[in-house]
Amino acid sequence: MSRHTIALESPTPERAVEILRKSILGSRTSIIVGRCIVKYRGRAESFLGEGDRVIILKPDGSLLVHKASKREPVNWNPPGSIHRVYLKEGKVIVESIRRRPRETIFIELSEVYFVGSFKLIDEECIMITGTEKDVVDIIFRSPEVIEKGFKPLYREMSTKYGKIDIFGVDEKGRAVVIEVKRRKADLSSVSQLLRYVESVRESTNSPVRGILVAPDCSASARLFLKSHNLEFRKVMFK
Amino acid sequence: MSRHTIALESPTPERAVEILRKSILGSRTSIIVGRCIVKYRGRAESFLGEGDRVIILKPDGSLLVHKASKREPVNWNPPGSIHRVYLKEGKVIVESIRRRPRETIFIELSEVYFVGSFKLIDEECIMITGTEKDVVDIIFRSPEVIEKGFKPLYREMSTKYGKIDIFGVDEKGRAVVIEVKRRKADLSSVSQLLRYVESVRESTNSPVRGILVAPDCSASARLFLKSHNLEFRKVMFK
Repeated sequence: MSRHTIALESPTPERAVEILRKSILGSRTSIIVGRCIVKYRGRAESFLGEGDRVIILKPDGSLLVHKASKREPVNWNPPGSIHRVYLKEGKVIVESIRRRPRETIFIELSEVYFVGSFKLIDEECIMITGTEKDVVDIIFRSPEVIEKGFKPLYREMSTKYGKIDIFGVDEKGRAVVIEVKRRKADLSSVSQLLRYVESVRESTNSPVRGILVAPDCSASARLFLKSHNLEFRKVMFK
Repeated sequence: MSRHTIALESPTPERAVEILRKSILGSRTSIIVGRCIVKYRGRAESFLGEGDRVIILKPDGSLLVHKASKREPVNWNPPGSIHRVYLKEGKVIVESIRRRPRETIFIELSEVYFVGSFKLIDEECIMITGTEKDVVDIIFRSPEVIEKGFKPLYREMSTKYGKIDIFGVDEKGRAVVIEVKRRKADLSSVSQLLRYVESVRESTNSPVRGILVAPDCSASARLFLKSHNLEFRKVMFK
């Protein structure tokens, strides 16, 4: 396979399966456009009737099924899922299996309009320019700047000690309090974060994480963070 | 253009622009795979250096930029954004402009590996099977079952009146309380929802929406919902 691309229009099911298997083995990103049904089975089950969709299989195990509208995929599995592609009664089947919790997405393609396999080279991460408030906006748009699975919920959340820049939840559903500093963070930045975290801890009875986001952090601030189990996230600013 | 697909490997920049413009005009879904930089400008600015990515332009105006890893797009604009594609110094430029708030994504492709244009026909929506708890799981995976932009945050959130099935926020950041019924909803279902909504209203000082999710709803329950400004969302169950 060439590095860049294998793109096939209206492949036979056999050829589609062959391309997709090689793509998965070769840690490539696969794109399928076709007419399909999608079954999801986790604790519940869902069924999406036949329609044309774009399916993306990423080499990290994520799977996305996109309709022709909306930002969100109509179905998906997270990174770490296992992809299987095979023929069943002459149709291409794409299966994505998440282990824990067990969740399976089963896609049966009645027609494949297109299959592509791409080796995508990408080492870059986002650089941000702006005031602290602006940076908060960016984190809302690109939560992966903080970490995988982070969901920002409120900005400027009032507490008795002042306003929290970002309040959100992590992948495991734990509350996350974020304080953003445009400059090198110091002891007073950590104190501020700690006040917010403690205020949220008081009002909930659940675990609360605190993350200080800044381009850099002084050594004493780092120690102070560590002693209170708070986290530091270096975010690159231009 | 044929209904199904135009898929081009390594098109010239001129040809890529031509295909993409026709695709946008024809309300088709465009897929681009290529090496690009991505600039975002809203209140803040962000810059993503050169790398290989998958770009999807949907006919509803959504734009997604995906890296080869993670579930979330690295950048995106919501439905309603305007797509522009043009040549600049021999390079393909894809621009997505959101009007309010003004947010622009500017993608400059130094290499285009693939361009595809697809007319996707899809009238189907998700059908759910499972217990109420299971249905809650599905809503967490496919929040568009409720509405565009809905973000579910907590399940089984305790209030003094009992447990809220789903607590989340809508596109505008307003709190949303959801009660799920597997069967036809009646007056007592609405009372239950109303208690939860009032309990959340008391503890926040912000607007709270209440949504009853069920396959059907009695006429009296509908009136009761309406009189308290609560909403009903029909969710199809198999």
